Amino acid sequence: MTEFHIEHPDQALRPALQAKIDDLTKPKGSLGRLEELALQAGLIQQTLTPELRHPQNIVFAGDHGIVDEGVSIAPKEVTWQQVCHFTHPQGTGGVNFLCRQHGFTLKVVDAGVDYDLPRDRGIIDLKVGRGTRNFLHGPAMTLEEMDKCLAGGASVVRQCFDEGSNVISFGEMGIGNTSPSSIWMAYFTGIPLAECVGAGSGLDNEGVRHKYDVLRRSMEAYTGDGSALDIIRWFGGFEMVMAVGAMLQAAGLKMIILVDGFIMTACMLAASKLHPQVLDYAVFGHCGDESGHRKMLDALGAKPLLNLGLRLGEGTGAICAYPILESAVRMINQMDTFSGADITKYF
Amino acid sequence: MTEFHIEHPDQALRPALQAKIDDLTKPKGSLGRLEELALQAGLIQQTLTPELRHPQNIVFAGDHGIVDEGVSIAPKEVTWQQVCHFTHPQGTGGVNFLCRQHGFTLKVVDAGVDYDLPRDRGIIDLKVGRGTRNFLHGPAMTLEEMDKCLAGGASVVRQCFDEGSNVISFGEMGIGNTSPSSIWMAYFTGIPLAECVGAGSGLDNEGVRHKYDVLRRSMEAYTGDGSALDIIRWFGGFEMVMAVGAMLQAAGLKMIILVDGFIMTACMLAASKLHPQVLDYAVFGHCGDESGHRKMLDALGAKPLLNLGLRLGEGTGAICAYPILESAVRMINQMDTFSGADITKYF
Repeated sequence: MTEFHIEHPDQALRPALQAKIDDLTKPKGSLGRLEELALQAGLIQQTLTPELRHPQNIVFAGDHGIVDEGVSIAPKEVTWQQVCHFTHPQGTGGVNFLCRQHGFTLKVVDAGVDYDLPRDRGIIDLKVGRGTRNFLHGPAMTLEEMDKCLAGGASVVRQCFDEGSNVISFGEMGIGNTSPSSIWMAYFTGIPLAECVGAGSGLDNEGVRHKYDVLRRSMEAYTGDGSALDIIRWFGGFEMVMAVGAMLQAAGLKMIILVDGFIMTACMLAASKLHPQVLDYAVFGHCGDESGHRKMLDALGAKPLLNLGLRLGEGTGAICAYPILESAVRMINQMDTFSGADITKYF
Repeated sequence: MTEFHIEHPDQALRPALQAKIDDLTKPKGSLGRLEELALQAGLIQQTLTPELRHPQNIVFAGDHGIVDEGVSIAPKEVTWQQVCHFTHPQGTGGVNFLCRQHGFTLKVVDAGVDYDLPRDRGIIDLKVGRGTRNFLHGPAMTLEEMDKCLAGGASVVRQCFDEGSNVISFGEMGIGNTSPSSIWMAYFTGIPLAECVGAGSGLDNEGVRHKYDVLRRSMEAYTGDGSALDIIRWFGGFEMVMAVGAMLQAAGLKMIILVDGFIMTACMLAASKLHPQVLDYAVFGHCGDESGHRKMLDALGAKPLLNLGLRLGEGTGAICAYPILESAVRMINQMDTFSGADITKYF
């Protein structure tokens, strides 16, 4: 199985970072979350002058066998259609305009889409299979497939790192993937499944009830060993497990990880069950409207930067939060100190 | 008295705007607040393709006679020191790095600072007086001074408009200005004064109690006619009344107004008591930590975009929210439609 080595950031620098932030020309603490982010970035990068280099957003795409049970309002074909859409030369998808706005490079990875995707779009081909198996009747993937996902996600992140990136966000495209996310959440937080299940891309109340019923039966039918790795394998999507591997690798390389919505939060939760240190590198971008997202964030002790009612995925909520992280880094590098600016320090 | 003419945006375009937003390649409503902002921008600009041109942030600065009563932890001299700091060629203040990050032009206006500011820094000189009078003992300014403020704020906005701006934010620098803001809030919302008073730039509990006591006695001593204009004049700061005039002029010119923290929200509240239509042009950027800010926003029916714990003023919370407004405009202009992209529309 692919191994990851993640260290907690050394805390020795914390007092010097805090002192620098407190001496900037503003009432102490008055830049709120920017001050917290600057501290986190400084600790991750082990410097008083953190910087953000070459942000990239990786969208992992895959299909889900559980869709056969009617758990999503959207048909499976939307997965491959959207992957083509994101990689169209004109870039007119939801994630595209945000990447352009904030200077992100977009990478799209075929983790396991049930379609022969075009070869001329720059899609990174790491296809593990044509969609997972239906976890109502057994594990979604084999051990070998899971390891391919973890290794594949890690390889894409190493490529980004080699290209000079030190900040990265992840997104997903996979019709049906709120279902595995809800089950991971239920297992990994202990929150009752009913509070973990939501409308996905637009189910009505009856649809949500049916989805809950399918997921409840899937959990009842589970016969694995109950370990985190087994839960990940049994219920996960190829694109989700690839994101778990990517997050673990990013933390191993001391990159800042911007966490997107419900599904990417579920992946960060799963990653943290394997290596809790990964959370030191996470900046939670957005709390979406999907039922349970707030509770999952609370269970992680996460304070998302934004709450804009987004529920699109693709990394959009993470990318929207990027300028706030950038503000934090500019703050600590570009603001003057009280002593340097000849302003009376009154506290 | 300076007059303002503000129209409600024509609502005839609303169905076409909503239809365009709903046909973008995403689950309906899944871009949340971005969709609401795109609708608002389209209505303000009366177009299906809104755009943001030349954003500017205007910082109005002034001093307050009420500071003589010990209502602020910071000494009055910090007002002029910070004004010099913002306009230093190296631009190392809090508002400076945010203006640079998001492409804002910064204008700094001397509305009534108690100091002879340098002439070589590009500070716009609209000084109405060397600080307001102490409103514990009578009105903070005369009718003539108030009108100078309203007209002065309007003139700066007309200059921005003539320079090609269609989006603008306002900030303030004025030691003591949470005090008049709290009183405006109490009068204009009916919320008890005790819930409108907070720590400002860092008072302790004893300091907040003293501040409340000073403000309560000031309200008890009030002998004006109780009209909105009289409350504005009696308790206002020069920089605050100038911001009120600026907001009203911006709405009159159909500009999008980004609203900053507690003090600028109090100014928008005051402006709305003179011309309620001004609210149609307002985008509330940030809910800060100052006690009462959330309640004032609620009283206005405002949903701030951010909640980052900022309490610096200067326009910082408004500017931090700008990229979200920009995302909304990019969304409606750059995303493809379901029909155009050959993606199955499933709702």
